[in-house]
Amino acid sequence: MLNFDLYTPARIVFGRDTQQKIGKLLKPHARKVLLHYGGGSIKKTGLYDQVVTSLNEAGIAFVELGGVKPNPRLSLVHEGIALCKKEGVDLILAVGGGSAIDSAKAIAMGVHYEGDVWEIYDQGLKIKKALPVAIILTIPAAGSESSGDTVISNEAAQRKYGYGSPHLRPLLSIMNPELFFTLPDNQIANGVADMMSHVFERYFTNTTHVDLTDALCEATLSTIIANGPRLLDNPQDYDAWAEIGFAGTVAHNGLLGMGREQDWACHDMEHELSAVYDVAHGAGLAVLTPAWMSYVYKDNIDMFAQFAVKVMGVTKGFRDKEELVKEGIDRLRQFYRRMGLPQTLSELGIDESKLELMARRATGIEYGQENPLGGLKKLGWEDVLNIYRLCK
Amino acid sequence: MLNFDLYTPARIVFGRDTQQKIGKLLKPHARKVLLHYGGGSIKKTGLYDQVVTSLNEAGIAFVELGGVKPNPRLSLVHEGIALCKKEGVDLILAVGGGSAIDSAKAIAMGVHYEGDVWEIYDQGLKIKKALPVAIILTIPAAGSESSGDTVISNEAAQRKYGYGSPHLRPLLSIMNPELFFTLPDNQIANGVADMMSHVFERYFTNTTHVDLTDALCEATLSTIIANGPRLLDNPQDYDAWAEIGFAGTVAHNGLLGMGREQDWACHDMEHELSAVYDVAHGAGLAVLTPAWMSYVYKDNIDMFAQFAVKVMGVTKGFRDKEELVKEGIDRLRQFYRRMGLPQTLSELGIDESKLELMARRATGIEYGQENPLGGLKKLGWEDVLNIYRLCK
Repeated sequence: MLNFDLYTPARIVFGRDTQQKIGKLLKPHARKVLLHYGGGSIKKTGLYDQVVTSLNEAGIAFVELGGVKPNPRLSLVHEGIALCKKEGVDLILAVGGGSAIDSAKAIAMGVHYEGDVWEIYDQGLKIKKALPVAIILTIPAAGSESSGDTVISNEAAQRKYGYGSPHLRPLLSIMNPELFFTLPDNQIANGVADMMSHVFERYFTNTTHVDLTDALCEATLSTIIANGPRLLDNPQDYDAWAEIGFAGTVAHNGLLGMGREQDWACHDMEHELSAVYDVAHGAGLAVLTPAWMSYVYKDNIDMFAQFAVKVMGVTKGFRDKEELVKEGIDRLRQFYRRMGLPQTLSELGIDESKLELMARRATGIEYGQENPLGGLKKLGWEDVLNIYRLCK
Repeated sequence: MLNFDLYTPARIVFGRDTQQKIGKLLKPHARKVLLHYGGGSIKKTGLYDQVVTSLNEAGIAFVELGGVKPNPRLSLVHEGIALCKKEGVDLILAVGGGSAIDSAKAIAMGVHYEGDVWEIYDQGLKIKKALPVAIILTIPAAGSESSGDTVISNEAAQRKYGYGSPHLRPLLSIMNPELFFTLPDNQIANGVADMMSHVFERYFTNTTHVDLTDALCEATLSTIIANGPRLLDNPQDYDAWAEIGFAGTVAHNGLLGMGREQDWACHDMEHELSAVYDVAHGAGLAVLTPAWMSYVYKDNIDMFAQFAVKVMGVTKGFRDKEELVKEGIDRLRQFYRRMGLPQTLSELGIDESKLELMARRATGIEYGQENPLGGLKKLGWEDVLNIYRLCK
């Protein structure tokens, strides 16, 4: 086990009707909030009215900024920063999924940064301060409700970068599974693929003697695999949503990666797909992950054998590890198929024309740098290109 | 799954040499600390000198109060409160195990309470404030390094009461497995029994649809069971201590009990043993837990069958649940025996003379109240007496 620093301060207020407490919960922390959300579905469902009522009852003033899109845009972040400064906002309340939350975090740190907030992402600057962010989660997937991470797309530059800081850990997140009942099948499936990937990127490691986090990762993956399909059968299954929502938080609050070298190659490769083609993050991950596994498993076949047995439930083939591993990866593909997720880049509308460019960008070569991806196996740009090609 | 409120803010700084960072870590939070510890073993091992050097280098002043005993005493807490007030201490640094930490928490809240701090325990008063507490852990067991809980013994009244508040969550805890290398076998075993019990008290529940926390509990228990015996074989096994230390924190930071009705009957029954006979908490739990299981399993046989299969690895007897459950409980007894833990009250030096009194006290009857213990099965004083008698 490696040395680590675990810090998971985001409070999770979970369960039925919890969104109605938001005003009371924020009262000790804010006088004026920015209400930040997406395309207005929260107005149709009545959630917007509930939030406004609760804020009013608590005597908390607010201004609002809607319009967050999937793969949230830098331009809206700039707008939010200006609005917060002008209005003297002291807390940002994101109502939505990962995109609204990531956008809120970008605004939160931009308010305290004198230059363009994109510089923080682009140059990996260390921030000292950010406005507090609170959340009412409507899409469990990104895990951003507990993490200190944010991913923003600079649409002008066609770049999508992630950034993380302990100062971006949310103050608190409301998670009511009932708020997930209206999600369409593709968003359910994308969310499931995203949270599974958050575990995979921590799970697949060359670090040894990590029994506890191995087992916690396997527990979380097994729970997601058992409950994901139940949501396609019945998107109003409270119990299944409770498991999936909670698992999405545990997957990405940091605990599961403690003491382990992590990987994150699939996320980095996917960010290029989203930056260039604006594909849904979870869908891109579902295409890339099995291909990545097939490409790298020989570098740590024991780790992938463990995955096959402990996560995918393979019970045959112990005398031929290669067979065991392939069966594990195949079962993962079958699971993604069951969830209705895409299997190939062509299903995502991506042809071969930009694969090389994306591989060169993902690894920095295109920008005169050389940043191989991954941890379990270091991937140069040609490796990344090979993996993209496996997904055709 | 029940509604829940998850809040685990205690930062865990884990790994080799981390104790040397304590001054730097506390610098932003404290000018003068109370260094609180036990019987002086930290002076023999050199840890005391390392801590003092680190505090000096960071320019943090300190006063000190040693002498914390197992089942920490109210009288020393009173002394600590007076010292902190007199010296203007703004943070308490506990160097030790659960006893030093629990004593530190009692002092931390006592400084801000006008009456006798015992009233907070005795009457379950709600506190609004406490001094921050930081920790250098030398005995992994109690989980107090991340929890908001404290247990104190009022030696004059022969009472041992627990208390919990979010204000008592530690600021940060240093956990370096190397600091555990000098622990004797009985403390290793007691610690293992204590942390397993922290999981059991959350795991055994009648709440349904708690797949994730079920699996996380099973992951944590399996890790403890796999690594505990390795420590008896070699108390300087860094990897095994890393697993056990980290598991002890995860067992008790709150995560594993979220959304579940919890039990805590074994802890409550054990507190009487410790209060009256001053036995080691873990040893008392090892005696009581299998007896409790045997007494209550019929109330939720499926839960105990799951325990037998998923935790104790029973693979036979699926067509006879009762047989399955008994085999699971028997395997737990075998594990405790392997760890050198006591199996009976008589091994703890406890005869029958006070069993009834303890049963009446544990359930409040003795004090004119009626507080049945437990969650999975509610236990009146006669049930508690029956369980004590099963342990003879």
